[in-house]
Amino acid sequence: MIRVTVWNEFVHERHNAAVAAIYPDGIHNTIAAFLRPHVDLDVRTATLDEPDHGLSEAVCRDTDVLLWWGHAAHDRVEDAVVARVHRRILEGMGLVALHSAHVSKIFTRVLGTSGVLIWREAGERERVWVTNPGHPIAAGLGDCIEIEHSEMYGEPFGIPPPEEQVFISWYEGGEVFRGGNCWRRGNGKIFYFSPGHETYPIYHHPQVQQVITNAVRWAQPQGHWPNGFRNVLPEQAHEKIVATGPSVHGPGGTLVGRGKADA
Amino acid sequence: MIRVTVWNEFVHERHNAAVAAIYPDGIHNTIAAFLRPHVDLDVRTATLDEPDHGLSEAVCRDTDVLLWWGHAAHDRVEDAVVARVHRRILEGMGLVALHSAHVSKIFTRVLGTSGVLIWREAGERERVWVTNPGHPIAAGLGDCIEIEHSEMYGEPFGIPPPEEQVFISWYEGGEVFRGGNCWRRGNGKIFYFSPGHETYPIYHHPQVQQVITNAVRWAQPQGHWPNGFRNVLPEQAHEKIVATGPSVHGPGGTLVGRGKADA
Amino acid sequence: MIRVTVWNEFVHERHNAAVAAIYPDGIHNTIAAFLRPHVDLDVRTATLDEPDHGLSEAVCRDTDVLLWWGHAAHDRVEDAVVARVHRRILEGMGLVALHSAHVSKIFTRVLGTSGVLIWREAGERERVWVTNPGHPIAAGLGDCIEIEHSEMYGEPFGIPPPEEQVFISWYEGGEVFRGGNCWRRGNGKIFYFSPGHETYPIYHHPQVQQVITNAVRWAQPQGHWPNGFRNVLPEQAHEKIVATGPSVHGPGGTLVGRGKADA
Amino acid sequence: MIRVTVWNEFVHERHNAAVAAIYPDGIHNTIAAFLRPHVDLDVRTATLDEPDHGLSEAVCRDTDVLLWWGHAAHDRVEDAVVARVHRRILEGMGLVALHSAHVSKIFTRVLGTSGVLIWREAGERERVWVTNPGHPIAAGLGDCIEIEHSEMYGEPFGIPPPEEQVFISWYEGGEVFRGGNCWRRGNGKIFYFSPGHETYPIYHHPQVQQVITNAVRWAQPQGHWPNGFRNVLPEQAHEKIVATGPSVHGPGGTLVGRGKADA
Repeated sequence: MIRVTVWNEFVHERHNAAVAAIYPDGIHNTIAAFLRPHVDLDVRTATLDEPDHGLSEAVCRDTDVLLWWGHAAHDRVEDAVVARVHRRILEGMGLVALHSAHVSKIFTRVLGTSGVLIWREAGERERVWVTNPGHPIAAGLGDCIEIEHSEMYGEPFGIPPPEEQVFISWYEGGEVFRGGNCWRRGNGKIFYFSPGHETYPIYHHPQVQQVITNAVRWAQPQGHWPNGFRNVLPEQAHEKIVATGPSVHGPGGTLVGRGKADA
Repeated sequence: MIRVTVWNEFVHERHNAAVAAIYPDGIHNTIAAFLRPHVDLDVRTATLDEPDHGLSEAVCRDTDVLLWWGHAAHDRVEDAVVARVHRRILEGMGLVALHSAHVSKIFTRVLGTSGVLIWREAGERERVWVTNPGHPIAAGLGDCIEIEHSEMYGEPFGIPPPEEQVFISWYEGGEVFRGGNCWRRGNGKIFYFSPGHETYPIYHHPQVQQVITNAVRWAQPQGHWPNGFRNVLPEQAHEKIVATGPSVHGPGGTLVGRGKADA
Repeated sequence: MIRVTVWNEFVHERHNAAVAAIYPDGIHNTIAAFLRPHVDLDVRTATLDEPDHGLSEAVCRDTDVLLWWGHAAHDRVEDAVVARVHRRILEGMGLVALHSAHVSKIFTRVLGTSGVLIWREAGERERVWVTNPGHPIAAGLGDCIEIEHSEMYGEPFGIPPPEEQVFISWYEGGEVFRGGNCWRRGNGKIFYFSPGHETYPIYHHPQVQQVITNAVRWAQPQGHWPNGFRNVLPEQAHEKIVATGPSVHGPGGTLVGRGKADA
Repeated sequence: MIRVTVWNEFVHERHNAAVAAIYPDGIHNTIAAFLRPHVDLDVRTATLDEPDHGLSEAVCRDTDVLLWWGHAAHDRVEDAVVARVHRRILEGMGLVALHSAHVSKIFTRVLGTSGVLIWREAGERERVWVTNPGHPIAAGLGDCIEIEHSEMYGEPFGIPPPEEQVFISWYEGGEVFRGGNCWRRGNGKIFYFSPGHETYPIYHHPQVQQVITNAVRWAQPQGHWPNGFRNVLPEQAHEKIVATGPSVHGPGGTLVGRGKADA
């Protein structure tokens, strides 16, 4: 059972009539609704206005894959929650970052880059090409996905080199975009998928739903990565060594002589 | 002329006699001293206790390559300074992260991972193997560098996959470590080099000095990357398109309907 | 059911008494024997002296993961068989290349590099460190694997940058080696694992057996990648275009005007 | 001084009137002509019909960067010449593979993949987007290059993951293509650039000429990589070891007991 949390800032659906018409219960509930029928997925939602943004320590610990949708309120996400989510990703929780999440705090924090791009909101046609047909996230798709109305996201895109390139998008207005990219950070898997502007019914598109469902399965945790420092004492070394020389560490590996604010 | 800033927290050299004996003027001044004779390098230093940690907007703007040494006081580095340095790296400034910088705020911020590892301070022998002999950072070295006394840093190392692997270290006590790694983030180049524990005279070692000098040249900025968003209006599209559909943006691309804290 | 073929040149086991003592039925049968108890694996073997080296079209087509062990007779492997195996890898068959396979025709063909390294046969100790503890190929292992007697393989190793680094080895004599590396080529997954010199009982080591078993499961085919050219005619384009200009192609996309040897 | 050899199969220019009209002296001479004015480049040409295809040992040894254009006669290139060029690339010679070179013997040999793609010859518009504006190969370009008439090359493209993605193309007919990709193999740098169909005057385009000139400079050799095996004897080990166990090697590291064809 993969424990999935769909996070959404849930702002535009409550303040913009056009968006509300497409996602009356919020983008998170639309996504949760198409994931729930899959018997291997245990799906919950979380939103910005909940305490801890719905991402308490307990929720993070019990989440295998986190989906993230945000656009208007990236700056309202608490840094402490971002740090908590970041830590869980490095431990193994998968992150599926959707659309405007390319500049969310969590996406830029875990990748370390700006996430900037060029953009245009004109309802133009987007065609999402599969560049890696055998990849699990492309399973069940054909050569490409046609999205009749979409927001353009264009290159250059401020990301680290994708470790696996699954999709690249074509736009009617003449641009291209690396819109389906995989990375691994610590023990966590990260997938970014660009389609999903809130003024078009993109998360109602069956092939987009297929991609997101595939991505959730791909991003599930595997194995275990001890996420902390470890001091191996000289007498614990695999090869026999004789410790020598001065030290800046005291007993237990703590630093001594930090100066002003020794700790 | 490559404008180099050598940053050092400069703590242990002032509070630990053994370290002070090796680096009486601080690690930064030792590094600056071996870089300065190179006529293509214009070298300055900066330390934690200076205003802005010596890394004002002006200094960052006028720095092509930043070297970073820190160990005891990572937490005393202001987040605002880290954000400023991070932004400059994405614009093109090179970062040469030395030794304990593997858990500095700037290194973990720009790579997005924990930087954790296993370690032992026992003065054991380290042998730094060149895994990529043709790489510019390995220029002038032989097969390996012998460091008679070193702190052990061992795997697993919490970093993204290196884009170029220049060195891997062997330790007398039985461990290995990916201690010479390259990445690119935005328009900036990043090199991490693990040798450099402060209780041993490692920055006096001619081959270590060679590596750092090579790394500074490798990490110098190249080209230009516009580091901001750009809204391409429908009438500016390369292909003729007709804008359609609703919008969440107002004039000039600003978001409307952010809810509670509209801005 | 994963269909596994264990290939071995099967030379030294028949001509060297020391090797025969360790692997009386050949390395392939030792490996097959520890894989067979796993109910998800359907295991067969193939060797150099069989017709087609035991790798007919039918065998290749019915193989999901191929293990390759060779050392003394790389040059006796027919190029036509190598081409067939290569094609199958690009279609999705996994390749687990063992020990001296680093200079086998198939390994260097599918990676494009030399596979050269430095080496020493002195029965020294090797310690295989896990650099990616959460990786499926490291499942069930601790921090490292101790191999009491091993052949040294050292850097620089002539391979493309590993896409995932699972293991790095330490040697008693002072070297290091990237001995556990993953790549993807076309739709196929490739894993190289260095331990396995034939004069030591390395394939009897439980943790080495664990690694190979894990690797077989990791390397199993996923998805489907159409492995051929496709001519998309102008009238088949997703966007309406009007074909224009001269052509070097005739009907059906065949080239015309190849000169001397038109075909 | 960078020693450049521009190789061309030189077939269509002699057998197809439309191609001859654009490149009366052959594509190689057009490319050589725009490279020659650069005082840091020493440019020669070589073609298929010359002895050794113009790529003798001496020519290869004296070439720093090789450009390769072929389309109709890939199969007429001798395997021995391909092996020679391959060896030189691993030693450090740069390779700039142009257009249909994506299925040339040398490109597929050095990358190990099929190079297959989808294609259409319809004279449609191509727009080459810069995805890495700071990269040396993108120097002097704007956001994109417009090519009024081009052959479409589309995804999926059978290549290993690019180590640096410099360009991605958009096509009027609706496809995208990773048409500007960097790899390193051994000590050699490889750049593939897709525009260049012979029925359109693409190599007369100033920005295409800029890309190729940039690529030649980027691909020039750096450093030195010893491209052979090396046997480190037990007494030469950095750490003192005592050799133990049986051997399959005789004096000088030669293998013994190769069976049938002992050598």
